[in-house]
Amino acid sequence: MANVLRNSAKFGFSGVLSQLSNHSRHGRECVSPCFSLQQRNSSTSPKIKVDLDNSTGVAVLRMQSPPVNSLSLDFLTEFCINLEKLEMDKSCRGLIITSTLSKVFSAGLDIMEMYGKSPERCGEFWKAVQEMWLKLYGSNMATIAAINGSSPAGGCLMSIGCDYRIMADNPRYSIGLNETQLGIVAPFWFKDTLVNTVGNRAAELSLELGLLYSAPDALKIGLVDQLVPEDQVLSTAQDTMSKWLAVPDHARQITKSMMRKQTIDKLLSNREADITNFVSFITKDSIQRSLRMYLEMLKSRKA
Amino acid sequence: MANVLRNSAKFGFSGVLSQLSNHSRHGRECVSPCFSLQQRNSSTSPKIKVDLDNSTGVAVLRMQSPPVNSLSLDFLTEFCINLEKLEMDKSCRGLIITSTLSKVFSAGLDIMEMYGKSPERCGEFWKAVQEMWLKLYGSNMATIAAINGSSPAGGCLMSIGCDYRIMADNPRYSIGLNETQLGIVAPFWFKDTLVNTVGNRAAELSLELGLLYSAPDALKIGLVDQLVPEDQVLSTAQDTMSKWLAVPDHARQITKSMMRKQTIDKLLSNREADITNFVSFITKDSIQRSLRMYLEMLKSRKA
Amino acid sequence: MANVLRNSAKFGFSGVLSQLSNHSRHGRECVSPCFSLQQRNSSTSPKIKVDLDNSTGVAVLRMQSPPVNSLSLDFLTEFCINLEKLEMDKSCRGLIITSTLSKVFSAGLDIMEMYGKSPERCGEFWKAVQEMWLKLYGSNMATIAAINGSSPAGGCLMSIGCDYRIMADNPRYSIGLNETQLGIVAPFWFKDTLVNTVGNRAAELSLELGLLYSAPDALKIGLVDQLVPEDQVLSTAQDTMSKWLAVPDHARQITKSMMRKQTIDKLLSNREADITNFVSFITKDSIQRSLRMYLEMLKSRKA
Repeated sequence: MANVLRNSAKFGFSGVLSQLSNHSRHGRECVSPCFSLQQRNSSTSPKIKVDLDNSTGVAVLRMQSPPVNSLSLDFLTEFCINLEKLEMDKSCRGLIITSTLSKVFSAGLDIMEMYGKSPERCGEFWKAVQEMWLKLYGSNMATIAAINGSSPAGGCLMSIGCDYRIMADNPRYSIGLNETQLGIVAPFWFKDTLVNTVGNRAAELSLELGLLYSAPDALKIGLVDQLVPEDQVLSTAQDTMSKWLAVPDHARQITKSMMRKQTIDKLLSNREADITNFVSFITKDSIQRSLRMYLEMLKSRKA
Repeated sequence: MANVLRNSAKFGFSGVLSQLSNHSRHGRECVSPCFSLQQRNSSTSPKIKVDLDNSTGVAVLRMQSPPVNSLSLDFLTEFCINLEKLEMDKSCRGLIITSTLSKVFSAGLDIMEMYGKSPERCGEFWKAVQEMWLKLYGSNMATIAAINGSSPAGGCLMSIGCDYRIMADNPRYSIGLNETQLGIVAPFWFKDTLVNTVGNRAAELSLELGLLYSAPDALKIGLVDQLVPEDQVLSTAQDTMSKWLAVPDHARQITKSMMRKQTIDKLLSNREADITNFVSFITKDSIQRSLRMYLEMLKSRKA
Repeated sequence: MANVLRNSAKFGFSGVLSQLSNHSRHGRECVSPCFSLQQRNSSTSPKIKVDLDNSTGVAVLRMQSPPVNSLSLDFLTEFCINLEKLEMDKSCRGLIITSTLSKVFSAGLDIMEMYGKSPERCGEFWKAVQEMWLKLYGSNMATIAAINGSSPAGGCLMSIGCDYRIMADNPRYSIGLNETQLGIVAPFWFKDTLVNTVGNRAAELSLELGLLYSAPDALKIGLVDQLVPEDQVLSTAQDTMSKWLAVPDHARQITKSMMRKQTIDKLLSNREADITNFVSFITKDSIQRSLRMYLEMLKSRKA
């Protein structure tokens, strides 16, 4: 743990901004070198592609929303619809989540959904973030994150919502709940999920400092389960899935529920309060000013 | 943790069946090569032998029920009676649990107690399993498991019910709560005990996949505390016990209770519901069919 | 974990006595070779020195109460007053705690406060111990323990009350909650803080055996975060603090509260009962006899 703070954990910013920040400040792989606010993909083409192999019962969900698979309201809605379809499809037993983009799994929550938006819209957005996590963390399917690029903030949440994490063995890719670096706070259920994954102390350090871990450091603290060469992330996920599906579904599902139900119920019984809390925090003048400063910094860099 | 799933953790079956399964599928040491249903030891000779050394205050409890120290109702009853006697004997301060059998500590719950039995009998059996764990996990004695062979399922539960675990440094011996592999589910108090021992994430992986860990892997995740050469398991347990008994009893006991009381109370206040839950699960047609299939597989192999 | 018990963890006594015990029994560095009951520093000179650097916002709190920075009622009162001042000083954002003494950070609770004292006085003392922990564990400042010497019992509690621990890389220095070795029991909030830091199983072993860990072993189980050469403990703490202060205060503080509030609230709502419990335990004849025996042993050694 000593090394994490001293040598390897890097500080970044939340959401899409984290990528630029990493690039300029730490020499990490910039997941979107051509990133700019204007180049945001606003097409109505699907942000997610799902392929279900009926012979194996395994679906691969590919996130394909350039430049960095930001978790916008549209993206999350599409994600949840797809997840729900698979969940109800009895022929689907396993789900692998990966990215079609180079160098990024998902850059996390879309900051544009949090800046200059009405409280109503912010609340709608946050509800969708909750829904994504609830569906994923409580899924009856065996779920594997095939993390083929950086995965900060919300991207990390999505990863730790799965049953197993395989990451590309590339030290330039990072993962972590780095919200505090932008002055944002990961809510209790992000925290609970992280504690469940890496234990209390690693979560405490991680969240208070907003640490992003390189792939090797993420493995060391147990934030991911396995590193493999970049071109083998998906195939390893497929192989690993066959081991998960060798376990009788009902026994695995009951056990998974036993492990996660308490954490899920905590959000379910505090869902409205959590939305209210997020909205009142994110719409604060001081927080909005911080967000504007970052956005202006981005624009000035581009100019 | 990555390696656990990739290289070393092996899948097996619960109870006595796990041993055959390991043998045939993975080349692990078969703890009972001559195992057969007909050869089950049904004598009325004691299944357990206890020697209390009055000079040291240390009792050694030897499980001696061939072929694999299955935890039958008779076995558990005898185990609990012995434990209670020692608990009430003020001259006894420490307990070492080990096996007289070659290659096996205990193969866990006896599947024959769960197949084709009446709900009443199943309930009686389950109450005895609870009682074993309650007495062991809450014992005022310092307890050390001297694990000189494989220890799947209920054998693992018995091990993690102790204060300290010393295992034979033999990679062919395995230990773990592998219930899900047979379509059975470890109940919440098995889970709680495992989480208390190896942490939430290792327990989650372990229980959902029904992992059996080789001795070296068990050490890595903290499922056992120490590995020693096979012929030194008992003597090391004796040496270690002297360190435990160097601590004033009352301080150790109060501290132990502080660490474990909450977990124990959770079962105590849900004991009847847990029995009902087990009985309704195990007597399901689908579960009984699974058990019959395995038993028939065993018979056909023998023929 | 195996190694901890086998090779390296040493048993010691609580409070100032632990130092003598280490010296005589295990060859560990005696933190106070000239220690004697008569040489206790009873001057009214400050036991604590605080320097706040207004340019960095970082205060260094130096414990300077020879021979071993025992946590007496006077010491704790002075400590809490200083902590409160810094907490209310908006220019102070970070706190580093260290010792001016050679070889010892703090030897923990002062046994003289627990021996032959009235129940009222014992209660007053215990309330001060609670207050120290409550103020430290819940501090809004970023807190780093610069552990430049041994730190048993209450010294360990003070260390794990901070956000980060840097220890001198000297295997002769030890740290741990070794209360049970003296027949004393660490209360639930010591236990909770330790569990939060090193996890349930390491805490269980640690508390039941009253283990003191050498600096390298403390690093292995996560009891400290980092080891550095002895002469770099403070400078490393300063460097590390700048990373903590790079995180926006409000985000770090909210996150810290989210991580620690539950543990703090547990003591807050049981504070009186915890005092009553301590007083009734420590004033027992049997416990007082144990304490007298140790004190007489110390006197006879001196003679």
